[in-house]
Amino acid sequence: MASTATDALLQQVHRIHDIGRALSVLSWDREVNMPKAGDSARVQQMTTLRQLLHQFATSDDYGAAIESAAAELDGLPEDDDRRCLVRVLRRDYDRSRKLPEAFVLELSRVGAAAWTVWKQAREDNDFSNFQPHLSHLVELQREMAGLYGYEQDPYDALLDGYEEGARAAQVGAVFAAVKAATVPLLEAIAERGRSIDDSLLHQPFPVAGQEAFARHVGAVVGYDFARGHLGTAVHPFATVFDRNDARITTRWYPDFLSPSLFGTLHECGHAMYEQGTAEALARTPLGRGCSSGIHESQSRMIENLVGRSRVFWRAHFPSLQAQFPQQLGQADAEAFYRAINKVQPSLIRVEADELTYNLHIILRFELEQAMLSGDLPAGDLPGAWRDGMQRLLGVAPPDDREGCLQDVHWSGASFGYFPTYALGNLHAAQMFEAALASDPGVGLDLAAGRTDALLGWLREQVHRHGRKFSPDTLIERATGRPLGHEAFVRYVTSKFSDLYGLA
Amino acid sequence: MASTATDALLQQVHRIHDIGRALSVLSWDREVNMPKAGDSARVQQMTTLRQLLHQFATSDDYGAAIESAAAELDGLPEDDDRRCLVRVLRRDYDRSRKLPEAFVLELSRVGAAAWTVWKQAREDNDFSNFQPHLSHLVELQREMAGLYGYEQDPYDALLDGYEEGARAAQVGAVFAAVKAATVPLLEAIAERGRSIDDSLLHQPFPVAGQEAFARHVGAVVGYDFARGHLGTAVHPFATVFDRNDARITTRWYPDFLSPSLFGTLHECGHAMYEQGTAEALARTPLGRGCSSGIHESQSRMIENLVGRSRVFWRAHFPSLQAQFPQQLGQADAEAFYRAINKVQPSLIRVEADELTYNLHIILRFELEQAMLSGDLPAGDLPGAWRDGMQRLLGVAPPDDREGCLQDVHWSGASFGYFPTYALGNLHAAQMFEAALASDPGVGLDLAAGRTDALLGWLREQVHRHGRKFSPDTLIERATGRPLGHEAFVRYVTSKFSDLYGLA
Repeated sequence: MASTATDALLQQVHRIHDIGRALSVLSWDREVNMPKAGDSARVQQMTTLRQLLHQFATSDDYGAAIESAAAELDGLPEDDDRRCLVRVLRRDYDRSRKLPEAFVLELSRVGAAAWTVWKQAREDNDFSNFQPHLSHLVELQREMAGLYGYEQDPYDALLDGYEEGARAAQVGAVFAAVKAATVPLLEAIAERGRSIDDSLLHQPFPVAGQEAFARHVGAVVGYDFARGHLGTAVHPFATVFDRNDARITTRWYPDFLSPSLFGTLHECGHAMYEQGTAEALARTPLGRGCSSGIHESQSRMIENLVGRSRVFWRAHFPSLQAQFPQQLGQADAEAFYRAINKVQPSLIRVEADELTYNLHIILRFELEQAMLSGDLPAGDLPGAWRDGMQRLLGVAPPDDREGCLQDVHWSGASFGYFPTYALGNLHAAQMFEAALASDPGVGLDLAAGRTDALLGWLREQVHRHGRKFSPDTLIERATGRPLGHEAFVRYVTSKFSDLYGLA
Repeated sequence: MASTATDALLQQVHRIHDIGRALSVLSWDREVNMPKAGDSARVQQMTTLRQLLHQFATSDDYGAAIESAAAELDGLPEDDDRRCLVRVLRRDYDRSRKLPEAFVLELSRVGAAAWTVWKQAREDNDFSNFQPHLSHLVELQREMAGLYGYEQDPYDALLDGYEEGARAAQVGAVFAAVKAATVPLLEAIAERGRSIDDSLLHQPFPVAGQEAFARHVGAVVGYDFARGHLGTAVHPFATVFDRNDARITTRWYPDFLSPSLFGTLHECGHAMYEQGTAEALARTPLGRGCSSGIHESQSRMIENLVGRSRVFWRAHFPSLQAQFPQQLGQADAEAFYRAINKVQPSLIRVEADELTYNLHIILRFELEQAMLSGDLPAGDLPGAWRDGMQRLLGVAPPDDREGCLQDVHWSGASFGYFPTYALGNLHAAQMFEAALASDPGVGLDLAAGRTDALLGWLREQVHRHGRKFSPDTLIERATGRPLGHEAFVRYVTSKFSDLYGLA
């Protein structure tokens, strides 16, 4: 069909896309290479590109082009690439148009200032300096929810920005089921009284060796280095400039192996998702991950379901030993497997094990809902945090640095993001079960330490679709049912019962 | 004064500037970090930004804003920052407007194809494949010269793009004087029959050690690493995203010290220039180097007049020995000084010594003038190259790979660029003399291996002005006279007479 309106739309889409990706390059460089002194110029450059992006992405002309193309594509099947593109463009356009430019600037200004204060407040362990900024941000988030609009809960308007279609009530119900299964399991582990020794992870590991093994294990799980790049960053992340240039970063601790090893696997999972999006979707908003939660499912899948499995280390522990003969020569794969899966209620989310991790998220989910509804004034956050940690995990932080100041998200005006981490864990477990059930080859492959068949399933069911479908549609298509807590609960129950010798 | 028209202009200037710098980041990343597979997406991103840049920089609106500001600033002194800005903006705007967009696209397309063919032709040592592309490029350059307009010589229109105000006739006269002084000096060296042994530079030098010393020596000459970054690139270059983020790249040969050592010093010279531009000029076209020739004077100054001087290595050879005790422990500073200054007519421009380098440039200057005037058809280039090398340097290349295919410039449609390399050498020598004459502290400092006083002079006379003045004005202000060959001739005559024991 001669789709002239669609072609005209695509020209605008490509321009917007290219500016967005250029922004990502500037942002990546800022984290990885830029001297600190270059920051104010960099912020100016990024602001200029963001203004252009906003201008193009909210123009009347662009909206009209979307509608013309929509009319032209009306008869096509619902899962046609172009129809899906128009669906996503409409959604993004409508959301962008709901925020007046003055509001966007105000939020960006307040967020930037809050972030600077938060960084210092965390360093100084002084919540009181951050408190007024947090109050202001909560107000603005409430205003933003109103601008976006919602049916039941203002929180839904924010959550929807990260996880299309997700609603607080439904997420809350799933989280309640996860909590109900996790807490007894943790109690049983505590009662069993058998602690795992993970001291072999805490030894001097020369950084050059860590990097060599990170590259090795990244390639083993299927990250294509020829279409990627490994850099160093204080707060690791994955970023994508194109499906053929999807990069990861890692940090290196000279005395602790886990951050670089599992950090690399985690970011590889994100980047492999981007590398696997269909070529046909490139240079459009469809050529990237579906949502924050689905993205996290891919990183968690590689980090945890693959990277913390017994079968994986049976196959690959010898390579790790060869890299670190002095440190690990006397250990065996089983001891290593146990060490990397030690369960221990602790204070810091990013260091939490698979079982306690979701409880950290549930706490944040509850607290940000309470702040948004007005039930929890910003000043009461530290106390509510301590109480919540005690209630959910049985430990309480000695100070706010290890408490409510630990995460960057709220200071960056990202309310509604946290749940997607836990949703990612649930998606990952449900997909993993479905992949194993789809073909005995998946399990056989994994048993031999290979991810080819699993990755084949992910590419087919998840990666190639990019952002064509909503998270709900994607998980239903891939696994035959809506997202639930069951697969995750089965996974952790089986894994940790075995590890801790529970009934 | 309430300069509203100027403020309005500055908004447009800043936007154009920021997009240009974003393009530089994308280009730097492409050379330093990008996986090859990411190239086609990167080209798309860069093309989109270039189109925006071109659109903004040639709009009627922008031209009108320049004229409104010009009227507003009319009474200010000629060297006022804003008046200088308007002068440069007018010049850039007028040049940009002279090229129709279709021509720019055509040139970019033909240049990109020619570059790809040239790369392969050089690898295959097959000029015949490149020849039709070269012919086409010469035609387009001739057309471009016509579009820009010129008084006497079409070459002037191209040269002016790299060196404002320079004219072929005047450059040719200066080059003739350089040649007249250089050739007898080379003959005297050849007759003297005393060859310098530079084998100590050709030993295994571990790359980690080279990098450590490159960082050391870069800091010694005054490159501010806190406002810069050292990366690795196949073809080293310096680039600037801001005066506080001026980066260099270097390449590392495991068996040859000179490329990383003098390459680093060279790029440091470029980057130090950018780091020294005045803060007040930032985010405008004035906040960068004056011209290609003046830029090259700064790199050559640091690489040669400082970095290949006896006094410098008397002070710093011990540090180099400490870095490479096995390789250099038995050598002394004088032997090292002699080795790095060995004169030897040779085939490759980028490997040429200080004395023969300009002859390589003179050859290219003559040949590109002849091609542009139509006197030299592209097919006759290889023969003309061999004859010219024989005539100027007394050596002739065995093939085109080491002959007329060695440089990237013509394939990239950069005609008129080559002379600026030699002009840089002349500017550097003239500035160096003036700096020494201005204050005895400069020479005393250099004698102790320090560049602080020299750099102080450069910052004051050259760097801080950025692009405020034309090259002619700048050198006249800084040294009290127009650019000439005399200082350079004095410098090389004295240096190489001493080195080779000539009368």
